[in-house]
Amino acid sequence: MDGFIAVDWGTTNRRVYLIADGAVIETERDDRGVASKPDFRAEINAIRGRFGNRPIVMAGMVGSSIGWHEAPYVAAPAGLGDLAAQCPRLDDRVYIVPGVSRIDATGPDVMRGEEVQLLGAAEAGLVPPDALLIQPGTHCKWAELRAGRIARFTTAMTGELFAMLGRESILAPQMSGQVTTGDAFIAGVDAGLERDLSAALFGVRARGLLGLLPADDAPSYVSGLLIGAEISARFAEYEGALVHILADPHLGALYAAAIRQAGRDAAEVDSRAAFVCGIDRIESLL
Amino acid sequence: MDGFIAVDWGTTNRRVYLIADGAVIETERDDRGVASKPDFRAEINAIRGRFGNRPIVMAGMVGSSIGWHEAPYVAAPAGLGDLAAQCPRLDDRVYIVPGVSRIDATGPDVMRGEEVQLLGAAEAGLVPPDALLIQPGTHCKWAELRAGRIARFTTAMTGELFAMLGRESILAPQMSGQVTTGDAFIAGVDAGLERDLSAALFGVRARGLLGLLPADDAPSYVSGLLIGAEISARFAEYEGALVHILADPHLGALYAAAIRQAGRDAAEVDSRAAFVCGIDRIESLL
Repeated sequence: MDGFIAVDWGTTNRRVYLIADGAVIETERDDRGVASKPDFRAEINAIRGRFGNRPIVMAGMVGSSIGWHEAPYVAAPAGLGDLAAQCPRLDDRVYIVPGVSRIDATGPDVMRGEEVQLLGAAEAGLVPPDALLIQPGTHCKWAELRAGRIARFTTAMTGELFAMLGRESILAPQMSGQVTTGDAFIAGVDAGLERDLSAALFGVRARGLLGLLPADDAPSYVSGLLIGAEISARFAEYEGALVHILADPHLGALYAAAIRQAGRDAAEVDSRAAFVCGIDRIESLL
Repeated sequence: MDGFIAVDWGTTNRRVYLIADGAVIETERDDRGVASKPDFRAEINAIRGRFGNRPIVMAGMVGSSIGWHEAPYVAAPAGLGDLAAQCPRLDDRVYIVPGVSRIDATGPDVMRGEEVQLLGAAEAGLVPPDALLIQPGTHCKWAELRAGRIARFTTAMTGELFAMLGRESILAPQMSGQVTTGDAFIAGVDAGLERDLSAALFGVRARGLLGLLPADDAPSYVSGLLIGAEISARFAEYEGALVHILADPHLGALYAAAIRQAGRDAAEVDSRAAFVCGIDRIESLL
């Protein structure tokens, strides 16, 4: 077995894979994201201690200005070949996959890490080469693939807004409960589709004071509001009857329910398989 | 001179007026808002020590669940007479002006404190009896007056969102500068009118990373985005070629610029004179 080591090195978390012949032999996940300010050289040595002295291909925030070595963005449209062709090579068979930028008048945007998963989904045949994909999370990515390349994309900071509102806004006292895909969430989605976020959010406070929204329902309603407003704006920009979702099951179910409520269909995609296929293809092109 | 003492007692600040024959004889402002958990009885005694043993009429968060004595909301449509008729009277000639609620299917909302200023503006002849008024701030109120009464209103938590984003979001490092009504603000307003907030906010980060937005411009651009999205949604709900603004000069100028950019006219109104006229009228009806 030869194989290589892939590292999905984000802000908070890090996942390491030992990959050979396209298959994951071994994997581990920890919280040594770049925000924990790791000693990158020492970490690389430790990873090779555990997974063997193999080539290492890294993606994610490790290539950002707060990471180890800044990898410039590749401008969309971008495919796996474009990324492989522009991977900075650090010494000793260590590569960093670049991010992707969108530079146009209406929607300048950047991604770093998500591109491997997005392009890998098409490479693995999990989505068609022309498809609309989303990656919900702190910063949700919406990406349009054309012929297996990222044609354009948009990031919405919906997850971050939800976390901020729950942490310290006037709504925080109402938002300690769990988010579920029930009636309150769907009512929030319907309201969110109006794209009147600043007022609709205060309306959650007012509904609470007026006894019109049970306290347990507020988190689901707010989540629905934010996601509804996000998808309404994106549906105005991106076509695609079917939205492919790369997410953990909880967040994936929320977005799927909201997307269906807004009149399109949704299908969940195995995001780990997509990442592995994408990084394996990049490694084969280096 | 008989006169009375009016207290505009908010969450953070408190302003006390000695009013006689409709005129302010003396006033003071401090930071003993209800959030500072004052001893209300002792404060009333102290105020009377300074301003005389006169009737006291209070408005604002002092009448909320986090204040001294909860004054129920009066449902819109509501005028000064409705408020005066439903002022809880505490012992010893101390009154609390109730807030106003909007209870309908589309926009349940509440206000507490703003109603005196809004209705006082019409009472004083500063705005017509049929008018669209706004009170920018942490929670911006939009109110439609009909025949001098608050017919309906909407609160947008635009100021709170701006503060949250500046304090701890991914945009925080870009947002230490001042907000001005220059080109960056107007560009933000134009983008905000699209009502695509979650993505437009991340776009500020992307524009920064891609060198498309000077760091000094980010606070103005973000302010424009939030205000633009707010007024776009309100313009869809409220008619009125002229928007009357009750605000401090800085915030008033921002909203006036945004409103004009969005195609309506704006006029600033003396919010202190409005409050004094409103509370004086309420006192005369007690």
